[in-house]
Amino acid sequence: MAGGRGTRFWPSSRIENPKQLLNIVGDTSMLQMTVDRLKKMKNVEDIFIVTGEDLAPKIRKLISGIKPNNIIVEPSGKNTAPAIGLAALHIKNIRQDAVMGVFPADHLIVGYQKFARTVRSAIQLATKNGSLVTIGINPTFPSTAYGYIQYDPNSPEDHLNGYSVKTFAEKPHKKLAIRFLKSGDFLWNGGMFIWKTSTFFEQIEAHMPDLSNQLRKIEKRIIQKQDFTRLWNNIDPESVDYGLMENANNIYVVKAEFEWSDLGSWEAVYDVSPKSKGKNVIRGEGVVIDGHNNLIQSNGHFTAVIGADNLVVVNTKDATLVVPRDKVEDVKALVHYLEKNKRNDLL
Amino acid sequence: MAGGRGTRFWPSSRIENPKQLLNIVGDTSMLQMTVDRLKKMKNVEDIFIVTGEDLAPKIRKLISGIKPNNIIVEPSGKNTAPAIGLAALHIKNIRQDAVMGVFPADHLIVGYQKFARTVRSAIQLATKNGSLVTIGINPTFPSTAYGYIQYDPNSPEDHLNGYSVKTFAEKPHKKLAIRFLKSGDFLWNGGMFIWKTSTFFEQIEAHMPDLSNQLRKIEKRIIQKQDFTRLWNNIDPESVDYGLMENANNIYVVKAEFEWSDLGSWEAVYDVSPKSKGKNVIRGEGVVIDGHNNLIQSNGHFTAVIGADNLVVVNTKDATLVVPRDKVEDVKALVHYLEKNKRNDLL
Repeated sequence: MAGGRGTRFWPSSRIENPKQLLNIVGDTSMLQMTVDRLKKMKNVEDIFIVTGEDLAPKIRKLISGIKPNNIIVEPSGKNTAPAIGLAALHIKNIRQDAVMGVFPADHLIVGYQKFARTVRSAIQLATKNGSLVTIGINPTFPSTAYGYIQYDPNSPEDHLNGYSVKTFAEKPHKKLAIRFLKSGDFLWNGGMFIWKTSTFFEQIEAHMPDLSNQLRKIEKRIIQKQDFTRLWNNIDPESVDYGLMENANNIYVVKAEFEWSDLGSWEAVYDVSPKSKGKNVIRGEGVVIDGHNNLIQSNGHFTAVIGADNLVVVNTKDATLVVPRDKVEDVKALVHYLEKNKRNDLL
Repeated sequence: MAGGRGTRFWPSSRIENPKQLLNIVGDTSMLQMTVDRLKKMKNVEDIFIVTGEDLAPKIRKLISGIKPNNIIVEPSGKNTAPAIGLAALHIKNIRQDAVMGVFPADHLIVGYQKFARTVRSAIQLATKNGSLVTIGINPTFPSTAYGYIQYDPNSPEDHLNGYSVKTFAEKPHKKLAIRFLKSGDFLWNGGMFIWKTSTFFEQIEAHMPDLSNQLRKIEKRIIQKQDFTRLWNNIDPESVDYGLMENANNIYVVKAEFEWSDLGSWEAVYDVSPKSKGKNVIRGEGVVIDGHNNLIQSNGHFTAVIGADNLVVVNTKDATLVVPRDKVEDVKALVHYLEKNKRNDLL
């Protein structure tokens, strides 16, 4: 899943260079890291990238090791349920009994072996039980940025680290998030799903009948190699969480053993990055003198921070951002400002 | 006086682009502003620039309205007493009875009419009394960055705003500076001097005999159009304040009526600049969202400061500085760091 924009990483992220194409933590882009991770588990012809028309040419050029035909292009952004549906159609047409996995292209995952073990458990559950399987992240703080998954601790599949799901909950308010965390049987929804395509289509038919109808029509067009843009554009946007997971039964969750971050902000980049002296993170060229806990991200630019703590300083070719680490969410306000002032050169 | 380096304005100031050549407050360089101010009072052939060999070619190219022969080149930096001596030799050889004025090329002066009135008073005093005359700045806070001038409030020349000087004091410690300010009869030494060249050479002979001897020898070489580098290089460096003004008698000070700043740091630039909303100063392209009292100086770069107060953020083509306004003195530490790490590209 490599659509989406990621305004929170301005000035690094731009409309034409969104988060999944940035090297914000490693030496390669988030999308390339995701592809490389999956290539260790599966054949390259079994890996598909779903993205929008605007990004597809760039992804074809930048991402190595993916067959051009395996880049699935959404004619327009319709949120995750239709995007996954489109991918499922492509996969079904290649192999009827396939198990598919859905992975966001802009999340950080550390610990390949643990990741592979988790995914294999999920595949077993999806195959054996005909379930919708999701991967749940052990919550470390009462985040209001993620959906939550309540699981049954006394499930029969706990030898696979798998549990039947009681409820899928939307992003909670702070108080509710604290209650979720205290209860001990809630996990974060990391947006990773594993299921047989046949299970997926059955469940879509049951819970999202309109989308199901549209996908059937689109399938015919795809088989006949015809354009399906008009059909696609008539689809109502919906997330797979809200449209499917919150309504379906027979859902299992596998607890992730690996380290995970959705890298939702510059603060998250600071968190997951190795620290140098003074707990500063310096990516690119720069120095901190008499300062602590700063993040410098500097591209082709020498950046000096003197006598300051807890700042994020990001330099790109044409723009610079300075924001305290506890205010990184306000980068969105800046992007709104740039939109309002028609600064398309900076968006 | 256009020598000197000004490391405090890194990353804008560089070895090859020191403070006097920067547009840090106006639309032209500090040196050009100084030249333009003096051109309103005097003929252009009477204005001389003293600078080092490294900067002379650049100044010839950048500064308009100065005759090439009026750029006086020091073979090496020897502090202000020799530099002023060299200028005095040139002036004396053009006109024996000249009154010369010495003005730093990197100070901000606001209020031309008041400046001209102050200088004219100083010229009168220098001519009438055969005095060394200096221009004193009314101190506004107990600065430890300037020398102080104690004057006699009951002087006979107070109709010219001129007073006889009791003592020239070096940069004081904080406690002493507070006492100076309280006493009410101290002014800041702004490094501006007016005197007849004949008075100057008499006083140099009396108080700096070694320099006096060297200047005599150099004078002969200049008259014979011969190179004087070797003689110059043997001169001991000394400031005119320490070598001459602290020892001489018959010194007068004229109180400056104009607004003055030596622009000693980015903080001084913030102080003298017009403020926009939130008391931010934005020079170049940039925006402050939810922040106050910041200085942004941005050259060909869009700079966004979000949710931060009291910061200095400076962008140049190849470097960025972020420092709290109350720590701008530490920019020197950064320049030392760059020197130590042989980052000549950034010096």
